[in-house]
Amino acid sequence: MTTTEFTATDPSHSPRTGQATAGPAHTPAAAVAAAVASAAGAFPVVSTVTPAERRRWMEAVAGALEAHADGLVALAEEETALGEERLRGELLRGARNMRYYAAAGEGGAWLRARVQTVPGPPPVDLRRADLPIGPVAVFGASNFPFQFGVLGHDTCSALAAGCPVVVKAHPAHPRLSVRLAEIARAALAEAGAPSGTFSLVVGFEAGLALVDAPEIAAVAFTGSQAGGMALVERARRRPAPIPVYAEMGTVNPVLLTPAATAAPGRAGEIAAAFVESFTLGVGQYCTKPGLLLAPRGSGVVEAVAGRAAGARGGWLLTRGIAAAYADGLRALEAAGGEVLATGLGEDGGYSARPAVLRVAIGDLREGTPFTEECFGPVALVAEYDTLQEAYAALARLRPSLAGSVYGGGAADPDLAEAVARVAAQVGRVVVDGPCNGVVTEDAMHHGGPWPSTSDPRATSVGAEALARFTRPVAYQNVPDAALPPALRDSNPWRIPRCADSH
Amino acid sequence: MTTTEFTATDPSHSPRTGQATAGPAHTPAAAVAAAVASAAGAFPVVSTVTPAERRRWMEAVAGALEAHADGLVALAEEETALGEERLRGELLRGARNMRYYAAAGEGGAWLRARVQTVPGPPPVDLRRADLPIGPVAVFGASNFPFQFGVLGHDTCSALAAGCPVVVKAHPAHPRLSVRLAEIARAALAEAGAPSGTFSLVVGFEAGLALVDAPEIAAVAFTGSQAGGMALVERARRRPAPIPVYAEMGTVNPVLLTPAATAAPGRAGEIAAAFVESFTLGVGQYCTKPGLLLAPRGSGVVEAVAGRAAGARGGWLLTRGIAAAYADGLRALEAAGGEVLATGLGEDGGYSARPAVLRVAIGDLREGTPFTEECFGPVALVAEYDTLQEAYAALARLRPSLAGSVYGGGAADPDLAEAVARVAAQVGRVVVDGPCNGVVTEDAMHHGGPWPSTSDPRATSVGAEALARFTRPVAYQNVPDAALPPALRDSNPWRIPRCADSH
Repeated sequence: MTTTEFTATDPSHSPRTGQATAGPAHTPAAAVAAAVASAAGAFPVVSTVTPAERRRWMEAVAGALEAHADGLVALAEEETALGEERLRGELLRGARNMRYYAAAGEGGAWLRARVQTVPGPPPVDLRRADLPIGPVAVFGASNFPFQFGVLGHDTCSALAAGCPVVVKAHPAHPRLSVRLAEIARAALAEAGAPSGTFSLVVGFEAGLALVDAPEIAAVAFTGSQAGGMALVERARRRPAPIPVYAEMGTVNPVLLTPAATAAPGRAGEIAAAFVESFTLGVGQYCTKPGLLLAPRGSGVVEAVAGRAAGARGGWLLTRGIAAAYADGLRALEAAGGEVLATGLGEDGGYSARPAVLRVAIGDLREGTPFTEECFGPVALVAEYDTLQEAYAALARLRPSLAGSVYGGGAADPDLAEAVARVAAQVGRVVVDGPCNGVVTEDAMHHGGPWPSTSDPRATSVGAEALARFTRPVAYQNVPDAALPPALRDSNPWRIPRCADSH
Repeated sequence: MTTTEFTATDPSHSPRTGQATAGPAHTPAAAVAAAVASAAGAFPVVSTVTPAERRRWMEAVAGALEAHADGLVALAEEETALGEERLRGELLRGARNMRYYAAAGEGGAWLRARVQTVPGPPPVDLRRADLPIGPVAVFGASNFPFQFGVLGHDTCSALAAGCPVVVKAHPAHPRLSVRLAEIARAALAEAGAPSGTFSLVVGFEAGLALVDAPEIAAVAFTGSQAGGMALVERARRRPAPIPVYAEMGTVNPVLLTPAATAAPGRAGEIAAAFVESFTLGVGQYCTKPGLLLAPRGSGVVEAVAGRAAGARGGWLLTRGIAAAYADGLRALEAAGGEVLATGLGEDGGYSARPAVLRVAIGDLREGTPFTEECFGPVALVAEYDTLQEAYAALARLRPSLAGSVYGGGAADPDLAEAVARVAAQVGRVVVDGPCNGVVTEDAMHHGGPWPSTSDPRATSVGAEALARFTRPVAYQNVPDAALPPALRDSNPWRIPRCADSH
C-alpha cells in the first residue's frame, strides 16, 4: 500500500443526476510550489516581451479554444448542465474576450505611461507607468465555466497586463478545468511563451497554498461572499499581504418609477423581462436581479407571479448550490417572505424550480435573509407607496454589482433621481432593461461597493480590468537605456502616452 | 464639579524643551458623529458641483494659507522645531499643492470618463466614470505639517475628487492642526462651500470613531507602520469594510554600481549627498535613504562616516519619536551594526544626533532591525563584493517608497539591471540623486509595494492621487438627463473623454 492510493481528487458530478465520475487528483504541495516557481521564473519574460508578442500568445489560446469547441462544450455540459447552446455561445464569447484583452494589452493604454520634464533648475526627468505586478492566482467561478473560468476575464486580463497566471481548478467542473488548461498550455508553448506563463492546480489545499505562496503578487476571485472573504482574510495574514480582487455579488435591485407602468401593456413587459432575467442560467448569475421594487397597485407584482408560475427551472451546478438554494428559500419564507409563485422543475439531480416571494418593503434591511444573495432562480418583489419609501429601502440593501431602473421614458420626472439612488448602491445601472448582461467593452464596469466586491475601484470585465494586475513605478532622471520600453524616448511599443503638462 | 473638568486634551509640546502647553480638547463622540453627518450631508453638493466650483473653493483655501503664513509658520515652529525657513517653504509648497489638485480636479482626467456605443442589434449606450466615493477620513503625518498634514496631499486630492473630508488632528502639532482647520473652514465658508465640506476632530478616540463611522467611505493615512496597519485592521472590522490608503514607509535603499565611483571625487560627492539626504529634516522623511549599498573598497563608506561625524542633528518631533530613535539605535547595534560615526546634536528636548552604522551585507534580512524603518537621522551602510550579492540583499529588504541608483553614466553596463532591481522593490527609482524629494507633478508616484503602503496601486502625491477617492460606475442606456454631467452628451464640464473604440 503506497501513499498515492490516498491521494484526494476532485470528483466530477453530473448536475442532472448527481452521479460522480472520477476527476483529477489534487495537486500536491510540491507541485503547487513548482507551478508558482515556474510562474515567477516566467515573470521577467512575460512582463517584458512586447505587448504585441503577448497578444500573439493569447490569440493562439483563443484559436485553440475555438478549435476544441465541440469537446469542450460537451465536457462543460456534462459538468454544468447549462445547456449546449448556452455553453457554445459562452465559449465563443470567451475566445472573443481573450482576443479583446490581447488587443487591449497591445494597445497599451493600461500602462498609463506619462513622460514629464519638471522645470528646474535643474529640470527633472520624471516618468511613470503601471507595470505588471507579478504572478497572479486566479480562482474562477462555477457559473460561467468559459467566461469566468480557467481562461476567463481574470486570466485574460492578467496575461494581457504581462502577469503569469496560476489558476485553481473549480470543483464544479474539474475535468473541464484540466482540459482547458491543457489546451491553453499547449497553445502557449507552441506560440513560444515560457512554460510558467500559465498553469493549473487542483484542490482546496492547493488553492490555499497558492494564496500563501510568496511569489504570488495578486489574487483574483469570482464566486460567493464566503469564498471571497476567506481569500481576502487568507491573503491579509500572509507575511506580505497582497491585493485580492474578489467579485462576489449580493442582491441586485430593480426599481420601477411610478411612471414605468403608465403605458398600456408595460407592466406585463417589465414582468416578462424580469422573470426571464432572474431565471436565466437557472438564476446563477452574480448580476441576477434579485429584488423588484414596484409602485403598489401597478399590477407588476401579479404579472411577475403569473409569469414565474409558468417559468421553467433547471439543474443547479452543484450539490452545495442546490442545498443552499433550498435552505435559502426556507429562510426567506421563515423571515416573512410570502411565496407568490413556484415555477416548473426538472427531474432528479440538482434540479431547482423558480420562485417569487413577496416581502413587505419595511422588512428589507440588514440582518434579514432578504439582503443576502440566494444563488438560483428566486426573486423578491416588494411594493412601495412612495418613492421615498423605495429609496430608503434601497439604501438599506447591501451594495451590489448592478441594478435596473424602469421609468416612463426620458421625460419621467423621477428618472434622474431614481438612477442616482440606484447608482449610489451599485457598480452599473441599466435603464429599461435587465442588468444581467455584462458585455466585454472598454466602458464596462463589472464591480461595485463592498460586499459586492472586495475593492470598490476594481472591475473584472473591460479594459480597466488590467489595472488590477499592475503597480505604478516612477522613474526619475533615469537614462533612456535603463528605462522600461514603455517609457523610453523612442516609445518602441507605440503606446499612447501623456506628455508634459507644462 | 462637572464632567467637563475631565475632558482630555492633546497637549502641545515644544520639541526644543519637551515642555507642554495647553492644547485642544478631544472631540466628544457626539461631535465626531456630527462632523461625519455634516460631511455626509455635504456630499451630494460637493460631489455634484462643477469641478470649476470646487477649484474656486480650494483656491480660496490656498490663498488663506498664504495670507496666514506668518502665524502658521510660527505656530508650526513651536510644535515641530523644524525651522522657520523650512516651514515657510513647506507652507508655500502646501498652498501650491492645493492649487495643483484644484486644477487637476477641474481638468477632469481623473474621472476617466468613457462614452461608448456597443454595436447591436440593438446598440447599447454604455458610459463609465470614476465618481467621488463619499466622505473621506484623513490622518496626516507628523513630519510635514503643511504638505502631509491637515491640508496636505490627502485632503487636497479628496476635495479635488469631490469628497468632503474629516481630518483627525495630529498629536505632534495639535494647535497648528486646529488653526489650519479654522482657516480652511472660514475660507471654504466664504467661498460658498457647504459647512460639511471640511472639518477636524481631535483625539485618539475621535480618530477611531471616524474610521468606524458608517458614512466614511475611505481613509487616508500617512505615518508609521504600526499606525497605518492599525487603521487598516480597524477598517476591515467595520460591518462594511472600506479602503484604507496608508502611506507608511520602510528602509529606502541606495545602490552604487561598481562604476559609480570611478570618476575622481565621485565617492566624496555621493557620500556628501547621502549624508545631507538622510539628515534632512532630522531624518524624518518617509523617503529618507536608510541604507547605502556600495562596492567594497570604493571609499564611499569611509567618506559617509567622515561626513556624518560633522553633520548636525536637531530636535525630533515628539517624545515618542525621540524614544523610538534611541531604542532603534540600540537595536541596530545589538543586532551587529557597527557605529562608524555619530554627528553633532542640540541641547535638551527631543534632540537627536546623526549616526551611521556598518552592517554586514549578509545580515540584511527580514527578522533583523536592519529592514525596519528607524525614523530619525540614522543610516546603514553595507559593502558588497559582487553586484549579485547586492541584488540578493536588495531582494531581502522590505519593499519601500523610493530608492536611488548611483551609476557611472548612461554607458554604465550595470545601470539598466541595477535600476530594474531597485524598481522591483520600490515605488520610485532615482538615478544619481537622493530619493527624498517628492515633487507634486502628474508623473509622480509616491507609493510602493506593501509594507511601504497598504495598497501597491495607490499614490498619495500627483494627479493619480485622486483615483483613491473614486469609485467607477457604468451607465447603460441611461437617458442623457439622468446621467451625471461628466457623461452627458454635451460634456458640460469640458473634460477629456474617451469616445467609441469602435
